[in-house]
Amino acid sequence: MATSGFSHRWASSDYYQRIGRTLEHGKFHLAFFDDRLGMPDRYGDDYALTVRGGIRAAKLDPVVVAMTIGMATERLGLGVTYSTTYYEPYHVARLFATMDLMLGGRVAWNVVTSLNDAEAANFGRSEHLDHDRRYDRADEFMEVVLGHWATWEDGAILADKQSGVFAEPSRVRRLDHDGQYFRSRGPFTVPRSAQGQPVLIQAGQSGRGRSFASRWGELIFVVYPNLTIGKAAYADMKGHLRSIGRETTSIAPAVYTVVAETRTMAEDKMAFLEGLAKPEDALVLLSEVLNYDFATKPLGEPFSDEELDSITGIRSTRDRVVQLSGRRNPTVEDFIKYSGRATAREFPTFVGSAVDVADQMEEWFLGGACDGFVVAAHSVPGSYEDFVRLVIPELQRRGSFQKEYAGSTLRENLGLTDVVRASAAPARASAALAS
Amino acid sequence: MATSGFSHRWASSDYYQRIGRTLEHGKFHLAFFDDRLGMPDRYGDDYALTVRGGIRAAKLDPVVVAMTIGMATERLGLGVTYSTTYYEPYHVARLFATMDLMLGGRVAWNVVTSLNDAEAANFGRSEHLDHDRRYDRADEFMEVVLGHWATWEDGAILADKQSGVFAEPSRVRRLDHDGQYFRSRGPFTVPRSAQGQPVLIQAGQSGRGRSFASRWGELIFVVYPNLTIGKAAYADMKGHLRSIGRETTSIAPAVYTVVAETRTMAEDKMAFLEGLAKPEDALVLLSEVLNYDFATKPLGEPFSDEELDSITGIRSTRDRVVQLSGRRNPTVEDFIKYSGRATAREFPTFVGSAVDVADQMEEWFLGGACDGFVVAAHSVPGSYEDFVRLVIPELQRRGSFQKEYAGSTLRENLGLTDVVRASAAPARASAALAS
Repeated sequence: MATSGFSHRWASSDYYQRIGRTLEHGKFHLAFFDDRLGMPDRYGDDYALTVRGGIRAAKLDPVVVAMTIGMATERLGLGVTYSTTYYEPYHVARLFATMDLMLGGRVAWNVVTSLNDAEAANFGRSEHLDHDRRYDRADEFMEVVLGHWATWEDGAILADKQSGVFAEPSRVRRLDHDGQYFRSRGPFTVPRSAQGQPVLIQAGQSGRGRSFASRWGELIFVVYPNLTIGKAAYADMKGHLRSIGRETTSIAPAVYTVVAETRTMAEDKMAFLEGLAKPEDALVLLSEVLNYDFATKPLGEPFSDEELDSITGIRSTRDRVVQLSGRRNPTVEDFIKYSGRATAREFPTFVGSAVDVADQMEEWFLGGACDGFVVAAHSVPGSYEDFVRLVIPELQRRGSFQKEYAGSTLRENLGLTDVVRASAAPARASAALAS
Repeated sequence: MATSGFSHRWASSDYYQRIGRTLEHGKFHLAFFDDRLGMPDRYGDDYALTVRGGIRAAKLDPVVVAMTIGMATERLGLGVTYSTTYYEPYHVARLFATMDLMLGGRVAWNVVTSLNDAEAANFGRSEHLDHDRRYDRADEFMEVVLGHWATWEDGAILADKQSGVFAEPSRVRRLDHDGQYFRSRGPFTVPRSAQGQPVLIQAGQSGRGRSFASRWGELIFVVYPNLTIGKAAYADMKGHLRSIGRETTSIAPAVYTVVAETRTMAEDKMAFLEGLAKPEDALVLLSEVLNYDFATKPLGEPFSDEELDSITGIRSTRDRVVQLSGRRNPTVEDFIKYSGRATAREFPTFVGSAVDVADQMEEWFLGGACDGFVVAAHSVPGSYEDFVRLVIPELQRRGSFQKEYAGSTLRENLGLTDVVRASAAPARASAALAS
């Protein structure tokens, strides 16, 4: 969640619980954690810059941090990123199902494929799976996880002390999955939660990633560099979702907000934030996210078609640079400039008074570019405290944002009326899901 | 923790937090969770009995449950079982290091090797690793986890906003582990906690398992079937631990306590508990823990030497039956009788008034059979509420148990003055560990 402003206090429960309480006070639907299973060291094959500058050098396990926040809140959803590449589906199924029980149906899983060599090296692989194959594996991973989640029917547990019957065996089945990448048998050992199963978040925007997102995502996170591109991409993706019967899936682009009591004060703050950005941070993070060592190439040299094709990391970042620069073969400088990576304007940035920021958010929200936002923070807890104190009341006054949570589970709060299921689930499991 | 008394409320945070608060009120050093990555279905190759009787049919992820309790307590340690067989060492290192940060240095990891075919099948392996090989793998797993934990020196983090320095790169190193079972590179992304690193629990008692326990365990859990055997085994193990310089390692046998306001009332309660046991529960659990289908063998037929050797599960259970029955080739009936599995007397059971139970505990504790106890529960939260209300004050009155926690971390509370380290750690990492 933090993109800067690290200090030692972040390594404590108090710090995270304060953020969670602030978000819940503002009626945010959920707090969300990204993740990476390694430290950025692709740039110049060294981690010294990363550690010195604190450029995503510390990455805590997001399940543990989400539980820390979840136990200090009552309605706030908790969205946790976990990899389909380096974990086992049985483990992920059990971990998230248990979280969803303990947090009363407030959990979401942000499904990712892992993308860079630092992660591969920590897990004993010499290099990363190629882009499309890691999505094939992820599709099967989802079949296994969702399959296990559907094996306990609602109402299977009787817990009848008189007869000594804990649960009805005919209402618990084995998955018996035997596929190309995974085998997993069951029976699963966690019954269904108050919301049935965790909400699925996905953020794929390019090619294979986009079809993965539309197949599984119940909430889709995107990066739209500006309103024009956002409107077109949103209309396209919503049309696609409707065509495959996924009406309740929401799309939320990441944005920054810089708000203060007056527009001038907000602009001053924005100038201060822009002054903090360092080009070396951008190169460290671009090297990590694209899994390409930017230190090997002069600043002004264009990437060849072959080099662009060889990028195995997040392709939407590459595509964005090509699109915004207007060049089929952008240079390293173009990547720094148009990716926005490690700058205070990496995402669309709404700056001004509460009225200004609310106006800009409504321009997107009412103008057909999104169903909601991922509000990113320049610093935590400051960015969220400002937003909740100033912008949320303004949006609530206008009727553009909820004054109270709609229900007690995340699914209720997001208005998700259907549940994504594994295509291979037999009819009986589907019936359980629909109930 | 629960061995019976399941009801639906166990699937909520309230239930676990109530247990945690009870234990902390009683100044327990730690709450401890066992684990299994599958449902018992080895007996007759079926899980219907398991599900119907609730015989360890539900197994939640213990990290999530420990976090649930940890956030409702302040001093209680949290001991969590996690497998070295089906998880990756980088993942376990990060997960437990993060827990230890969020819980302020109160975490212990119970290191286990996974043992049965149900677990293997959930993780896509056709059968289990043999007994000794899974310990070889576990040894290397520990080298990786402890290696990563030692890569951030204490004080590496400066978090200096003026200079923009997050941490000193020369005080963070890569592990670069390249072994027989694992490769894992680093740098690790979690700094050290208030207690340096999580406490290590181990419970190996037989052959290879025993040498693993004495190498890594900082707290050793055992099952001693009676006081005579316990005294001999304790003296032997403590002597061995002293000989390898592990003076501060504690040994704690599992016991049951059944306490009431009077001895008669406690004996009545014990009789009630004994009446709940069913032989089929024993066979389901023996089949699981020994990874051998007891349905394939008539009750009175002795196990051959070959069959006994083929048991790949927990060997100390097998050894106990051989020892207590006095037969080199015990029968299925001997296993039911002498393993104690699924009975109210699986562990030594102290029954009576508070004075009676305290007397029996002191006989073990002061008589040279242990350094403390794992107090198992017949039902939760009842067993713990009774124990804390009745027995703890009696032990405190006698000066046999703490009236207050000694410190704020689990290491302080357990009096663990040294920290186990990976043998392969270079001199610099050892210096960090010793500081």
